[in-house]
Amino acid sequence: MRQSKLFTKTRKEVPADEVSKNAELLTRGGFIHKEMAGVYSFLPLGLRVLKKIENIVREEMNAIGGQEISMTALQDSELWKKTDRWSDEKVDVWFKTKLKNDTELGLGCTHEEPVTNIMKNFINSYRDLPSYIYQFQTKFRNELRAKAGILRGREFLMKDMYSFCKDEIEHNEFYEKSKVAYMNVYKRVGLGHITYVVFASGGMFSKYSHEFQTITSVGEDLIYLDENTGIAVNKEVLNDEVLASLGIKRENLVEHKAIEVGNIFTYGKRYSEPLNLNFNNEKGETLPVFMGAYGIGISRLMGTIVEVLSDDKGIIWPEEVAPFKVHLLMLGEDEEVKKRADEVYEILQKNKVEVLFDDRTGMSAGEKFADADLLGMPYRVVVSGRSMKENGVEVKKRNEEKGQVVSVDELLKLF
Amino acid sequence: MRQSKLFTKTRKEVPADEVSKNAELLTRGGFIHKEMAGVYSFLPLGLRVLKKIENIVREEMNAIGGQEISMTALQDSELWKKTDRWSDEKVDVWFKTKLKNDTELGLGCTHEEPVTNIMKNFINSYRDLPSYIYQFQTKFRNELRAKAGILRGREFLMKDMYSFCKDEIEHNEFYEKSKVAYMNVYKRVGLGHITYVVFASGGMFSKYSHEFQTITSVGEDLIYLDENTGIAVNKEVLNDEVLASLGIKRENLVEHKAIEVGNIFTYGKRYSEPLNLNFNNEKGETLPVFMGAYGIGISRLMGTIVEVLSDDKGIIWPEEVAPFKVHLLMLGEDEEVKKRADEVYEILQKNKVEVLFDDRTGMSAGEKFADADLLGMPYRVVVSGRSMKENGVEVKKRNEEKGQVVSVDELLKLF
Repeated sequence: MRQSKLFTKTRKEVPADEVSKNAELLTRGGFIHKEMAGVYSFLPLGLRVLKKIENIVREEMNAIGGQEISMTALQDSELWKKTDRWSDEKVDVWFKTKLKNDTELGLGCTHEEPVTNIMKNFINSYRDLPSYIYQFQTKFRNELRAKAGILRGREFLMKDMYSFCKDEIEHNEFYEKSKVAYMNVYKRVGLGHITYVVFASGGMFSKYSHEFQTITSVGEDLIYLDENTGIAVNKEVLNDEVLASLGIKRENLVEHKAIEVGNIFTYGKRYSEPLNLNFNNEKGETLPVFMGAYGIGISRLMGTIVEVLSDDKGIIWPEEVAPFKVHLLMLGEDEEVKKRADEVYEILQKNKVEVLFDDRTGMSAGEKFADADLLGMPYRVVVSGRSMKENGVEVKKRNEEKGQVVSVDELLKLF
Repeated sequence: MRQSKLFTKTRKEVPADEVSKNAELLTRGGFIHKEMAGVYSFLPLGLRVLKKIENIVREEMNAIGGQEISMTALQDSELWKKTDRWSDEKVDVWFKTKLKNDTELGLGCTHEEPVTNIMKNFINSYRDLPSYIYQFQTKFRNELRAKAGILRGREFLMKDMYSFCKDEIEHNEFYEKSKVAYMNVYKRVGLGHITYVVFASGGMFSKYSHEFQTITSVGEDLIYLDENTGIAVNKEVLNDEVLASLGIKRENLVEHKAIEVGNIFTYGKRYSEPLNLNFNNEKGETLPVFMGAYGIGISRLMGTIVEVLSDDKGIIWPEEVAPFKVHLLMLGEDEEVKKRADEVYEILQKNKVEVLFDDRTGMSAGEKFADADLLGMPYRVVVSGRSMKENGVEVKKRNEEKGQVVSVDELLKLF
């Protein structure tokens, strides 16, 4: 894409009301626009990142047998009353609204109830199990405060998966597979080296659950990591019983701040029993389906990447999630440079390399370099009078100090 | 995909509360699930159709210079008060909700106000114009009644584009381009032959607008078509002045029922003036930006396809929007047939042909044929003892009566 056509622009000043690094850098880069606290629109560059993360998660969920659907925001209260999760005392993040006839509706903050209700149409027998259903969907949570940019939103994009198994053994098998799939996601988005499976409390669903935590000094959670085994425990369940069950010792644990980037829960019959999602087993007995849930906040994951992978100049996008792989800069405005830059742009596009082409005129080299650092594409490629004298283009990785001049053929081999 | 793994199933009975053909067929086929009146979840087959339509529209919007963003459902009342569209008397389809501190919010039923507000950050000069911004986003409209399946939803997927130009001349040029892009969409989704650009009232925005209407006996709108010129007029603006301006005569017009599948509006300064979206022109004068809007209901378009392109056996999906191009049926369960059907499935997949493979056992040929007709893939390919005796597979188009036996090589050439 030609940057001269991109409607967003970078800005130097930090928005006064933003205190988080992710909101600051993403707003300055023109990736997002704040509608109100915790509610952000995604602009072209930001939407490209969000869609790339979504697609990585989709591929990993499909690889373990997930089937994609899309449920609704508007929620029928009758369904949630059956599981005792309608009242604001029980679930304190509901946004509620009304039909013209005064029927109260909710805006989905999670989707256990509706997905269980859908599955009642399709699960009758053990032959219909297991089944793994997921969606990418906008969640609404009426948070009291929302100051962490896209890390904690009142409206945000989430991948939520729900598993339906005949018993705990079948469930556990998938639960372990999901851990591997989740770690694949974190590796692919560039966070694998600092993200851990963490033993955590099960909330209102079960005694324990697992979180995926990315270590960073801005994290809101505290985790305890045994660096020898890689086993980690959330502070909330750090007790002797848990340590013994995991076979780790308190004295080996190191405390880290971390951001929760995913979680997986075992529900068992928590939802299938009140909502009557049953199946007939091989012996003809009717039993409740054994359920689990698996969440990743897509926009939160994007915010985490920015918090962790940035420097004082801007964002450093990992290749698989960058809006474009290459930021091509035209420096100088004489016809030779313009012509050559255009040619390089065409060649990259022909070779299916995603490229943002800074073809803007009337800007200094310093301004263009600053924008490239802020926007954070993995590769910066410069066409200038100097690079042309050396019969090539200057290529530099965003996370490296020095570039080198290479021919266009050599450049293509890099990608 | 193997149908034995697909969690949805077809059903024979019509849901008692559905009166529209689109809801009936889509529910029976397992494409959608009704959450409440006018609120539907999309199941795997339905989501595939929705995404294909979305992608066709995306390609056509990108082709005329559109830039994709994603705005939010939650809306700040202050913004809408500035254009006098917050009160329920002015806009009667608002869903409203509240933050914990009692601040009232709306759920976006359209997005003129927020997109205009976003553009204030990026438009200063005539050099920043024109700009065309679009999104695929869930809209919420508190309709009094909702009985038309996914044709008229309380929550539905829409493509809305907004144009920002320096004057009416620049605007009109894009407005005409958008008409061509819209007609391309209708052609690609299989409705081109019965969809017309229709002269219509401008609602609260301007005197006139244009609608895209698909002729069908279940339509809620009445249009008048001059079949010689292809010019059509909505009943609401059928008067002598309009007829004269379009150069058509009342006696040549034929009345048709039709479904509105898109609309385009000229706003001029309607939003830019109250929201202060201005630019400096070449002479240094400050002027309001000249705006327009361009909508297509993606889920409504899917519903229209089903209403129009179906017979008494089920849906007849056009190729570009079908969940899968091919429905491969294994008929009979002896090992030879199973093995051959598996092979054909592998070959089709290797050749990137999208195929739903009915590998289910314990079902009669009649049941499988009925499912294939209901689900409506463009090509039905049968592997059976009979087709194997003839050294081939039987291929039949959904919209044709008779099939023919061809070799697998010939089959691949078809696709």
